Amino acid sequence: MANEFELIERLRQHVQAHPRLRLGIGDDAAEVLFGDQQTPVLITVDMLMDQVHFDLANTDPKLIGRKSLAVNLSDIAAMGGEPVAVVVSYALPQGSADQLGEQLHAGIVSLAEKYQVAVAGGDTNSWKGPLVISLTALGQPVGSHSIERSGAQVGDSLFVTGQLGGSLSGKHLTFEPRLNEARELVQKYDVHAMIDLSDGLSSDLQHILRESQVGAVIEAESIPISSAAHQSGSDRSPLEQALHDGEDFELLFALSPEEASRLQQHPELAGTPVTRIGTIIEGSQAFLSEEGKQTLLRRAGWEHSL
Amino acid sequence: MANEFELIERLRQHVQAHPRLRLGIGDDAAEVLFGDQQTPVLITVDMLMDQVHFDLANTDPKLIGRKSLAVNLSDIAAMGGEPVAVVVSYALPQGSADQLGEQLHAGIVSLAEKYQVAVAGGDTNSWKGPLVISLTALGQPVGSHSIERSGAQVGDSLFVTGQLGGSLSGKHLTFEPRLNEARELVQKYDVHAMIDLSDGLSSDLQHILRESQVGAVIEAESIPISSAAHQSGSDRSPLEQALHDGEDFELLFALSPEEASRLQQHPELAGTPVTRIGTIIEGSQAFLSEEGKQTLLRRAGWEHSL
Repeated sequence: MANEFELIERLRQHVQAHPRLRLGIGDDAAEVLFGDQQTPVLITVDMLMDQVHFDLANTDPKLIGRKSLAVNLSDIAAMGGEPVAVVVSYALPQGSADQLGEQLHAGIVSLAEKYQVAVAGGDTNSWKGPLVISLTALGQPVGSHSIERSGAQVGDSLFVTGQLGGSLSGKHLTFEPRLNEARELVQKYDVHAMIDLSDGLSSDLQHILRESQVGAVIEAESIPISSAAHQSGSDRSPLEQALHDGEDFELLFALSPEEASRLQQHPELAGTPVTRIGTIIEGSQAFLSEEGKQTLLRRAGWEHSL
Repeated sequence: MANEFELIERLRQHVQAHPRLRLGIGDDAAEVLFGDQQTPVLITVDMLMDQVHFDLANTDPKLIGRKSLAVNLSDIAAMGGEPVAVVVSYALPQGSADQLGEQLHAGIVSLAEKYQVAVAGGDTNSWKGPLVISLTALGQPVGSHSIERSGAQVGDSLFVTGQLGGSLSGKHLTFEPRLNEARELVQKYDVHAMIDLSDGLSSDLQHILRESQVGAVIEAESIPISSAAHQSGSDRSPLEQALHDGEDFELLFALSPEEASRLQQHPELAGTPVTRIGTIIEGSQAFLSEEGKQTLLRRAGWEHSL
């Protein structure tokens, strides 16, 4: 397909407003209201496929199972949420289905226990095709409401957790979903907008800009570049990797100038460093500020291919 | 794999008890409690794969999308529930991904609107493999509680909605999930146990027997056999098809003798005929009573192959 964003945009037009659907397509998770009390439930789904999101032949199945849960927990974190339960469906290659299913599930259960998530059910199938895992996570807002992509305001500061770039050398299988960081952030600060970096900073930033109808300037010198990006031996610079590589699964969020100052006094959340990397401006475009020059920051993120 | 049930049974052993998880693996849907009010949320997931659950080359993609939702709504119905929202993930074959994604989604949205279900989000991917759709449905109990598989009691009568057998000749793509029937049933009767017939009567009955720790006698002459089973030209008898064919997506449920008598005075629910087909007995086995003789009713249901 042309790219994933265009299809999502078109599918979005099919989706009708629904009285129970407070947030639908266009955020890291949907928010649906249940019961007489209008209890908010966050829902997100991610499907991982062999040779697209992982390489089964060269990867411990437990890490693949773990990743299928971790990417969804990252989405719940990006909503300012805490996970409650997950369901998982498998298409397992015939022949190895039994053993593989158990290993994948062990990887899921291990991470689920760490974050006290109930593994509520599943659907196991075998077939002649490659391995596919689809995991749906349910959660609830930590605070009084979910954090959306649409609340960034002109003048806000942009922050990221951790370091960026080079995730495919290993972090994409072992990363810690930023649940504890999101919890502390939401409990201590008034967060305007948040997203998790799954497709790459240059790509995911666009979602916040589009939903919030604003622009941004990213300061190249401020971006926390991972050691993996420095050591990758890639022909792309460490900065380019930090800007465009997918699967960092760090949080990108916007705070008002006052809240930003407060966070910068102790720039960490749950023990993880956070870094101010830019500013929300008027307009609709993202710029990169580097050595005093501003250039258009083009989206060159990862679109689902290893 | 040996069969799906064995793997599910083993995975079940991995699942830890969780304070939010009221019902986990072993029912048509899980029930998870959300928020301060312990609001019950039903969750079920089904994955459909090309050449296993449908044949993309010879099927309207809208019907495939519709089916991916209908099978999940059937699970919600079997819990005595009503659906609220769904999320869907796709692995779309490269080349046709754009158009196919839209057609599948149109089929989902059309059935979702009929039952006022919010299509809350999704994850679209393309790859070199065959089409895979995974759909997760969320719902809530219609009555004060969900209907489980485990409540059947010795002496109960067993009923099915509609007619059984021969579904693969067409009904598996066009069946109506028995949501309205389940609603009327739950509102008017005290239902002891319920399941939807996805793998076949002889197979799905075993789930009720195992979870309820009872046996059953099915009366061959009572089974409502579909015209599709009569007209299939199969070398298996219409009765065998009705007993063992998968994908009927009718409801099988247990009522006390008193409730059964009441239902039999007007044996229909929401305009759909219901038929008493047997009795719960002591023990753990299912028997078929035919022309005065009882034989063991072996499980010979459909285990996920077209």
